[in-house]
This record gives sequence, structure tokens and C-alpha cells, in this order.
Amino acid sequence: MERVRLVHGNGGRFSHELTERFILKYFTNDLLAPLHDGAQFPVTAGRMAFSTDSYVVQPTFFPGGNIGKLAVCGTVNDLAMNGAVPQYLSCGLILEEGLAFDELDEILHTMSDMAKAANVQIVTGDTKVVKKGEVDKIYINTAGIGMIPDGIDIGPHRVKAGMDIILSGAIGDHSIAVMGQRFGLDLSDALKTDCAPLNNMVHAVLDKVGPQVALLRDPTRGGLGTVLKEIADQSQVGIKVEEAAIPIHAEVQSVCDILGYDPLYLANEGKVVLVVDQSVTEEVLSILHGFEEGKEAVLIGRTLDKNIGKVGLQTAIGGVRLIDLLGEDQVPRIC
Amino acid sequence: MERVRLVHGNGGRFSHELTERFILKYFTNDLLAPLHDGAQFPVTAGRMAFSTDSYVVQPTFFPGGNIGKLAVCGTVNDLAMNGAVPQYLSCGLILEEGLAFDELDEILHTMSDMAKAANVQIVTGDTKVVKKGEVDKIYINTAGIGMIPDGIDIGPHRVKAGMDIILSGAIGDHSIAVMGQRFGLDLSDALKTDCAPLNNMVHAVLDKVGPQVALLRDPTRGGLGTVLKEIADQSQVGIKVEEAAIPIHAEVQSVCDILGYDPLYLANEGKVVLVVDQSVTEEVLSILHGFEEGKEAVLIGRTLDKNIGKVGLQTAIGGVRLIDLLGEDQVPRIC
Repeated sequence: MERVRLVHGNGGRFSHELTERFILKYFTNDLLAPLHDGAQFPVTAGRMAFSTDSYVVQPTFFPGGNIGKLAVCGTVNDLAMNGAVPQYLSCGLILEEGLAFDELDEILHTMSDMAKAANVQIVTGDTKVVKKGEVDKIYINTAGIGMIPDGIDIGPHRVKAGMDIILSGAIGDHSIAVMGQRFGLDLSDALKTDCAPLNNMVHAVLDKVGPQVALLRDPTRGGLGTVLKEIADQSQVGIKVEEAAIPIHAEVQSVCDILGYDPLYLANEGKVVLVVDQSVTEEVLSILHGFEEGKEAVLIGRTLDKNIGKVGLQTAIGGVRLIDLLGEDQVPRIC
Repeated sequence: MERVRLVHGNGGRFSHELTERFILKYFTNDLLAPLHDGAQFPVTAGRMAFSTDSYVVQPTFFPGGNIGKLAVCGTVNDLAMNGAVPQYLSCGLILEEGLAFDELDEILHTMSDMAKAANVQIVTGDTKVVKKGEVDKIYINTAGIGMIPDGIDIGPHRVKAGMDIILSGAIGDHSIAVMGQRFGLDLSDALKTDCAPLNNMVHAVLDKVGPQVALLRDPTRGGLGTVLKEIADQSQVGIKVEEAAIPIHAEVQSVCDILGYDPLYLANEGKVVLVVDQSVTEEVLSILHGFEEGKEAVLIGRTLDKNIGKVGLQTAIGGVRLIDLLGEDQVPRIC
């Protein structure tokens, strides 16, 4: 089996070979300039969003995806959370000496598929190789840019009391799928990462009722609980959510019960929290339900003009639990 | 001594603390939205450049700099090599559990200083923490964007036969400074990395004679030799360079002689190769000489309409050596 060698990262002949054999195979487009120092393209006047994430998930391959899927979808989704239409991505690979070419090929193939699904182009990149043991197999950074359509203004400053909080689907699938793989748990084939590009769904909403959408957040690391607490803090509102309304797949709940995880703090890679004017809640739900990624979308709560900075979870048994930021870690290297 | 813990990367309370204590301390600006999923800013119509690099240099600290200096200057310089005015950077940190806060602080402080020197803003970022042994101390990715001024068109397509090739200064300092530190060589204090932001110098040239500048390349990994060969290949010209004209500091040459390194293939982090119309060579050299980073700038060769794709080095002893891409590695993890 052919494997990555240190010389594949030295910037010379072997780097060229790696680029031509794998990178250009999947990422070919007019703008990608692998042998130049970046991409050049025209932009129109307007508002741009710029975001980045590094991906260090372990294991590299897990039910429903791999690190390459996360690397494209994660940054695409971060741009979408700014209301931007994701357009161009960069890709920085850090490879461990000895990584099998077959695995690299599969990861890049997945990145290419996800880029097509999200309608973005990977236009510039960089590949480093470090010695065996100096990185765990492969880490990927992506950064991305996209333009924010006129009339769209998404951010904590837009959130006011009396708005509805919508969650696009069930929480915890990604974390449990990855942890199941990591620990060799015997889970059903149905339990997969929820990782998916959300930009098409988000823009279907924004195209219809953009001005009525105040905030978009994807509950990745830190989970839904942390995102809700951040919204309460940053937007200076209170938040009330109904525990019974939050969708959690039965198997995820079972694993959480056994391992002692709180699903509110598990990472998701294909969910979005929308804070919207109550006038458009039904329409937003209807649009979300039209997408595979949003078919379980549901109204989970509301912003309040009291209990500023606090998140109260109305529990199924009738009490109220205050939700804080995630504290001690549950699940490291989840994305 | 306080150290980075896994929880500093979990996206919750400890991540917020790390961000507030270190990231916001150094990178504060209006656009940085550490608790949102990206930065938003206005752009004007025109041509943009977008570039990225991951930095894995070992050791993290070396004479004249550290990984943070590389991470800002490297991407700033890649943008400058596109003729762009670097404007915004992203910063993705991958930290090893146990990294001392003092070291993180020094690295981020350096990034802040370099961003100021290069007149760029770090506007968005991400921090991951992995277990001890899953990364070697700290790896950094930066991506950057900047606008290309009207009338500037830099690229291999612009290079024609009969152009001059200018090198902005001596080669090999960065590699030898890093290798000296890595291997504990007893080198003089004068031997330091050449790492520096080149955008101010490059734009001083472009402002005066931009249309006459065909190509800009910084000879980082792969060194001057690889860059010249890439130019010959991509631009379909021959290249002739004079070995005696290429500046190499005496101590770098000595270390190369002892260790068997070829300085032509050593990485540089503060040098630029300019391919220009002969009509402006003297003016370009004069502008470069006005900058500390360009005071040793010199004409080293010329493009030819024969020997297409070949680089001939006229050696000091009168022969001609053909220069190929770097083959087997000399110096891994040099940037």
C-alpha cells in the first residue's frame, strides 16, 4: 500500500506529484492555482463573510462521514450562519507520514462531493507532512468566504425579546456516531453523523423571510445548551425552551443514559438554531420541513424580556433547569 | 505554570476563557467575532486574492521568530505575491494539551505585532485542543484575503522571454536558523530567520512600476531552485541565472558545506523573486534597496526564448548546472 512520505510536503517534486495525483484529481477548477500562492477572482461590491475552522476529529472515518465531510460542511455552515452564500474555500492539509494514499483519496473525494453539494469551489490550498506521531493521521483546516445578500443582517444584535427559537432537527447524532466508532460500541446502522451542508436550506429560508430572521447558529462544539446560553448573553435576552420539544433520537438518548452524556451539550454538524420573528415561524418551519436536513425542525422556545442572560429549560417533569455553557469536556476531538 | 487543557477546546466555558484571556487580548478589532461563526465586512468591487498555509515549524521558537511570526508573514506574503494588498486573516490554532500558557501568549503576541507591521487584521478564528502527543505543541493555519489594485496582473502568464529576474536578498537564513536551533548548533547571534512581511515593499514596487512586474514568488519550501524551475515550466521560458550573483551569507554557506545542504533548495520566509521588464530593473532594485528586507536585492538572471522549461545556473567556475525541482527532502517542518 502506498503511503504519504515526508518528501510529499517539501514543496518540491514529490509535492507536485501529490498535488497532481490527488488534489487536482478532485478539486480541479479554473481558480485553483496549486502551483501559485493563492487564487484570484473578481468580487462585486457588498458585504462578505469570512470564517475558518480546523478539523481534528478522531477517528478520521466514522458512520456517515469522515474528516473531509466535516471540513467542507463545517465552514460552509459557518458562512451560512452569517447569512452568506458560501462561494470559495481554502484547504490546508496536515498529513502524518505513513497515511495511506487510499485514505487520503477517500477524504479528498468526499470533500469534492460535499463542495459540489454545497455549490462551493475549493480554490487554494496547502499540504504539510509531519513525522509519524507528530499529528494523528490527518488534520484539515478550511477557510471560506461568501457574499451576504442585500437586506440580510444576521447577528446577536438583531435578537429581541418575544422571538421564536427554532431547531432544525434532532441533536446528538454526530457526537454519538463518532464516539460509538471511537469506542467500538455496537450501535445500529441507522445512527450516523448528521453532518451536511446547510446553506441551501438556510438560503431557502432567507430568500423568503430573510428580514425576519435575526440569528442563525449551528450547535457544534458545546452543543445546543452552549449556543442558547451564548445567545442569551450576547443578545441580552432571557430564553425559555421546552425540553419535551427538543428532538433526540431514541438510540442517542439510550447511549447518553448509559454513558452519562447530556445531549444538550453534544456536538451537531448538520443542525441550525434560528431565532425569528413570531410572524414567520410557521412559514420557516414549513420551508425547513421541505429539506431532508430540516424534516424534524421544531419550535423549541422563545426569547424573553426578563431573566436576561439566563436560559431556562422547562423539563418534562415540570421543573425549570438553568442551562449554562458547557463546562468540563464530554467528548474531545469531536470535529 | 498554567497549561492548556483539553477543555479549552470544547467550545464551552473554558473555550470562552481562553478566547477572552489570550485571543481578545491581542487580536481585538471591530470585526473579530470570536463568539460568532465568522466575520462580516464590506468589500468593494474588484479582484480579490485568497490564500492559505498551515504552519508546523519545529522548533516552535527559533532565532528571530516563532511559529506565530511565520503564520502571519507567510500568508501576508502569499497574498502580496498575487499583487494583492493583504487585508484580513483568519487564524486556526491546533494546540497540544499541556502547552504552557506563557508560550501561547508569546506566539499570539508575535502574531499581533506582525499583523500590525503588515497592516492586516485577524478577524476570525478557531481553536482546537488535542491530547498530548496528538500534535507537536502547536500548529497554526492562517488564510487571508486582499484586493488586487486595478492595473496589477501578476501571474505565470505574464512572463515572457527577455525579462529580468530579481532576488530581494540572501537565501537560506530561515532554514539554517531553524535547523541550528533544532540541532543545537553553536551559530552566531547574527544568524536569524529572514521571516518578515513583504507586502509594504512589494507594493512600493507595484505602485511605481506595477504594469511592468510580471511575476512575484516567495521562495519558501523548495527554495529558490524550485521556484525558478516552476517559473520556467509554468511560463514556458528558459531561465539563466548567475550563481555568483545569488547572495548567501557566509555562515549559511559554511553550515551548508558542513551538513551538505544546497542553499538553492533551502526555504526562505522573507524573500521575493520578481520577474520584471528590463526597462524597470534599475528602478525596482532602487526601490527594494530602500527597505531593510530588500537592501541586498540583486539581479540574478533572465528569461530566455530557448531551453524552454529549463533553468541553467552559470556556476562560478564556468560551467552550467541544470536546476530541477527539489527532490528528496533536506529540511522537514521548516515552516
